[in-house]
Amino acid sequence: MIQAGIVGGSGYTGGELLRLLHFHPQVEVTQITSREYTGRYVHTVHPNMRGVSRLQFIHPDALEPCDVLFLALPHGTTARNIEHYASLAPRIIDLSADFRLRDTATYEHWYGQPHPAPEWIDRFVYGLPEFNREALRGANYASGVGCNATTMNLALRPLAEAHLLERVSAELKVGSSEGGNSANAGSHHPVRSGAVRTYKATGHRHMAEVQMMLGEDVPVRFSVTAIEMVRGVHLLAHCDLTEPMTEKDVWRLYRASYNDEPFVRLVRERNGLHRLPEPRIVAGTNYCDIGFELDDDGRHLVLIAALDNLGKGAAGSAVQCMNLMHGFDECDGLQFPGLYP
Amino acid sequence: MIQAGIVGGSGYTGGELLRLLHFHPQVEVTQITSREYTGRYVHTVHPNMRGVSRLQFIHPDALEPCDVLFLALPHGTTARNIEHYASLAPRIIDLSADFRLRDTATYEHWYGQPHPAPEWIDRFVYGLPEFNREALRGANYASGVGCNATTMNLALRPLAEAHLLERVSAELKVGSSEGGNSANAGSHHPVRSGAVRTYKATGHRHMAEVQMMLGEDVPVRFSVTAIEMVRGVHLLAHCDLTEPMTEKDVWRLYRASYNDEPFVRLVRERNGLHRLPEPRIVAGTNYCDIGFELDDDGRHLVLIAALDNLGKGAAGSAVQCMNLMHGFDECDGLQFPGLYP
Amino acid sequence: MIQAGIVGGSGYTGGELLRLLHFHPQVEVTQITSREYTGRYVHTVHPNMRGVSRLQFIHPDALEPCDVLFLALPHGTTARNIEHYASLAPRIIDLSADFRLRDTATYEHWYGQPHPAPEWIDRFVYGLPEFNREALRGANYASGVGCNATTMNLALRPLAEAHLLERVSAELKVGSSEGGNSANAGSHHPVRSGAVRTYKATGHRHMAEVQMMLGEDVPVRFSVTAIEMVRGVHLLAHCDLTEPMTEKDVWRLYRASYNDEPFVRLVRERNGLHRLPEPRIVAGTNYCDIGFELDDDGRHLVLIAALDNLGKGAAGSAVQCMNLMHGFDECDGLQFPGLYP
Amino acid sequence: MIQAGIVGGSGYTGGELLRLLHFHPQVEVTQITSREYTGRYVHTVHPNMRGVSRLQFIHPDALEPCDVLFLALPHGTTARNIEHYASLAPRIIDLSADFRLRDTATYEHWYGQPHPAPEWIDRFVYGLPEFNREALRGANYASGVGCNATTMNLALRPLAEAHLLERVSAELKVGSSEGGNSANAGSHHPVRSGAVRTYKATGHRHMAEVQMMLGEDVPVRFSVTAIEMVRGVHLLAHCDLTEPMTEKDVWRLYRASYNDEPFVRLVRERNGLHRLPEPRIVAGTNYCDIGFELDDDGRHLVLIAALDNLGKGAAGSAVQCMNLMHGFDECDGLQFPGLYP
Repeated sequence: MIQAGIVGGSGYTGGELLRLLHFHPQVEVTQITSREYTGRYVHTVHPNMRGVSRLQFIHPDALEPCDVLFLALPHGTTARNIEHYASLAPRIIDLSADFRLRDTATYEHWYGQPHPAPEWIDRFVYGLPEFNREALRGANYASGVGCNATTMNLALRPLAEAHLLERVSAELKVGSSEGGNSANAGSHHPVRSGAVRTYKATGHRHMAEVQMMLGEDVPVRFSVTAIEMVRGVHLLAHCDLTEPMTEKDVWRLYRASYNDEPFVRLVRERNGLHRLPEPRIVAGTNYCDIGFELDDDGRHLVLIAALDNLGKGAAGSAVQCMNLMHGFDECDGLQFPGLYP
Repeated sequence: MIQAGIVGGSGYTGGELLRLLHFHPQVEVTQITSREYTGRYVHTVHPNMRGVSRLQFIHPDALEPCDVLFLALPHGTTARNIEHYASLAPRIIDLSADFRLRDTATYEHWYGQPHPAPEWIDRFVYGLPEFNREALRGANYASGVGCNATTMNLALRPLAEAHLLERVSAELKVGSSEGGNSANAGSHHPVRSGAVRTYKATGHRHMAEVQMMLGEDVPVRFSVTAIEMVRGVHLLAHCDLTEPMTEKDVWRLYRASYNDEPFVRLVRERNGLHRLPEPRIVAGTNYCDIGFELDDDGRHLVLIAALDNLGKGAAGSAVQCMNLMHGFDECDGLQFPGLYP
Repeated sequence: MIQAGIVGGSGYTGGELLRLLHFHPQVEVTQITSREYTGRYVHTVHPNMRGVSRLQFIHPDALEPCDVLFLALPHGTTARNIEHYASLAPRIIDLSADFRLRDTATYEHWYGQPHPAPEWIDRFVYGLPEFNREALRGANYASGVGCNATTMNLALRPLAEAHLLERVSAELKVGSSEGGNSANAGSHHPVRSGAVRTYKATGHRHMAEVQMMLGEDVPVRFSVTAIEMVRGVHLLAHCDLTEPMTEKDVWRLYRASYNDEPFVRLVRERNGLHRLPEPRIVAGTNYCDIGFELDDDGRHLVLIAALDNLGKGAAGSAVQCMNLMHGFDECDGLQFPGLYP
Repeated sequence: MIQAGIVGGSGYTGGELLRLLHFHPQVEVTQITSREYTGRYVHTVHPNMRGVSRLQFIHPDALEPCDVLFLALPHGTTARNIEHYASLAPRIIDLSADFRLRDTATYEHWYGQPHPAPEWIDRFVYGLPEFNREALRGANYASGVGCNATTMNLALRPLAEAHLLERVSAELKVGSSEGGNSANAGSHHPVRSGAVRTYKATGHRHMAEVQMMLGEDVPVRFSVTAIEMVRGVHLLAHCDLTEPMTEKDVWRLYRASYNDEPFVRLVRERNGLHRLPEPRIVAGTNYCDIGFELDDDGRHLVLIAALDNLGKGAAGSAVQCMNLMHGFDECDGLQFPGLYP
């Protein structure tokens, strides 16, 4: 049983970490911080934890040493204090964007400031177990992943690695929880309800993570449109292929990549109500579902993928990383299958 | 063609007034004020007016004389400036709560301050045409109505007037637009979406208007619960009756009250998908739909009613009042029937 | 490890049972039946079970003996075949309404037919652990509970037992999953979406269960209104009290009833976004949350309660009963805390 | 005042036609047919028409001659009976797909049967006023348009005509009303609610209309994904351009195409909550809103468009055609601006 701390525990990602870790068979959450809610029971902020956890938020300055720290802080905050956190715990999983990118120039381009702790970048492993599993085993520092980027990366990487992508044009549909827990004019229910709002037609920051994982030689464009949904990311990507594929080719490629993956499922049914991936099916889970359809004599592939931005797109992957870093069963604490209907 | 001004035009009620008056055959909206958006086109705030109205918001200080002023300001603001507005227009319709109540003590009880302009109270007619039609004809000053109160009052008043009510226990389900257009923690989409939140179990301010219209001798309780909806109020009221009624009795009573009313519809079908009133059917309209079911050998009546809080519950009734005050056809500008599905 | 079978496994309650039992530490689901889907993998009907369970539906005729059978069949079907099921398993939990009522005349009144197996009624324990815990321990046969009735019963029974109720007028707001998994004109998304549809203003069948648990001497009325929600029941009950209570009185009474209950939570916060029970907070869980507000100098109490109709209102309570019947930890398999946001 | 008949009046498109024509200053709806609802008041099927229209559905065999017939029948039905309808009215607007395509082979390819009345094809004008205005003026027969196709065609045609499109990859997000008014397993609220369901990743029938309007030389792919919405289509199209454009170029091109169009609006704001087109803003209206963003040094254009599938995508365009055919003001009956919020 290891002791875990959650820094920045009042946000949605912090709450999801608390939920997952509370029921993790190898972990005890001993500390959770919040400046604003110091002294309050966690259930006052995360009402699903009422009667479940008796933890109270502590002030960040009251943090004590523990086995692993999860950092769920705004971008930039982690990096500025990384020495401090590293002095408190031998293992750190940082869910911000601070240590995702390998390249400081790219960081500066997308996040608008010089990297606050460039010397730490190489110590962090990009926390996507499906592609960095071996590096994560026994690692001390892992970054989190971007939720939109992860949907793209998991869906597209088998094709990218096989040099089958000529060009990708995608749209991501996302839920309102991606925007975090601070109310603003755009999140006001009367205007956000029923919205189909393309808030990033071009130039989303997660492009940096996509290019890092897929390579920069393939032209990839994606837009992000907020829809009536709280949790979830749905990707539809139009892919022009460098050579024609058959359905069997696609199945073979994706099975080779993901058949042993506990949290990636290929979803492509001929019948039924849920023939392709859907965000609501994976809400609350650590799954990324991927499906496809071929067109144009096999030269055009439509990829569809879904995950929960707070689950596989954030807290779920982080817990999966922790499992690898500590040598636990990779699926520990992540087995909630989602609700239906 | 009269000239109308809308004061406080950037809110939801202001926008609804603008939509209704823009298409009104007897009215030209010549002025609409907003401190925050002075100089901006109205469609930047009310996007449904894009390409429809070329009006720009003006600063309140730039208001010029006109034929009728609609005041859509926060409670208390109108009353403090009523002399000023009265100097600008011979007719005023005030949608705030400032001039709804006949009694200053009641006002002070519910709104927490002495009435700012008690000498003006008697000049205002309570703007519910179904009960004050004759007083509104030719009146110069009309108050608006509370949306929840109006649902209660229209549904219950025939019974109250016939002294048939022994006791009323009601719940109102309301949409998020009742809270106005300012974002707050409770209106943040991730938490407001899918909410069923009883924000007033007891002691809602509109009780004052209900008691004013129904009398204080009947015990009336109502709760207000916010549900997943933007526009709309749905009332379900359990009424214990002083004497048993048959279905025919109820029909007769309500037809006597409302058969000539252009905007009150009795809805009670034996078949079909919409057998009783529903808010989505009346969204955007000036209708209040009322239905019922009898129980307990006729001693218990369940009343169901629905209206649009921005329509019949606010801007729609205000325009209806204006029509009466100016001698126009009472239905002018109010004939939009709603969308389905 | 006991072996469980689910009869009628393609419905929503069957799917919820499967989800709960699959992760139960003491149970293996070895059989699940469906006439329509015989031979199909369960995930084709319950997509959340993809990659989680490899079970296939079997035909009901292929059922083999096991330790416990959960019957999730339409009303009337269970009772007609109870001898058969009893020959297959020593313990049975029947989620239909067939064995809920103690009285055959009441059954016939509400379900429109003579009870098909009256001699079995006394062998079944009404499956509400909060009130029948001792009877359930070691019992062989338990009925399920009605979701709406359970919300009413858990919320009101402390008052009823203390003879504090003079009269109750309630409205239940419910989600679309209450109607089961068969599409019909009323469940068609374009008309059901955004609906606030009072489908039972009076005379809901669950009244029989409410009267059985609360007694018939207190006048209780409740209406049921479908709102935009999939899972969930929200109760708001106006209670006239036989004698005035203070807030402390209410707290004391409810704490005395429920403080040791693992799945009943009292929710009444002075601050925060979730001050009273909400269905979305308990979706997927076995919790029933109860809150209240006092009015009218303590003579009028507004009770608010929420549960998941598929969880505590059906499958959750059934699993809780199974735990008691088999001597397992009562909370086994029921610890999912729900998602937020 | 002309007399109009609506054939197939119980569907959603029929209801929308009824709503629009009822308030049209030049039209009286004298007949509306429905086999299923013969003899019933229209408000029993279209509840928004309660108290608005006293029309009753008639049996199709009871149709009498009138000035214009709107045919809102299933695909294939119109063409098989076109001689009959033409004998009843000098002008016909057919909202099915039967007379949209110019080419019988294309029709047979997409609709799976030989065209039932090929000799009539050339008499029909494709009913998109923005591109066929002159042909529609005084025409006797107009086809309706496909809702998804129209979104694509209005958004893309200026680029296609200028030979600026190298390739288009698009996704359309659509509401549940696109599926018509018949309930089915996929439209069942518990599964359709919150869905993000790609029901046509490739090969949507409307491709035929898109190719007819944009030409077949440009590779266009589009997918259709159903989201939580009742009315509305939202298009996001990634366009690779044959030559780089500046923002001014795009503005100039679209203004040249649409500046005089009463129902096409260019929506691209730098600030505010609604910077790009959104379906909820145009719900109930005849508007198609179009916006864009440039990327990749002007070689990649992201187009965003929105319309109401029942409005501009069906009944609205049909009424606009009727206005042109009869020489009415093109905007008559189409001025509802939509609701906000």
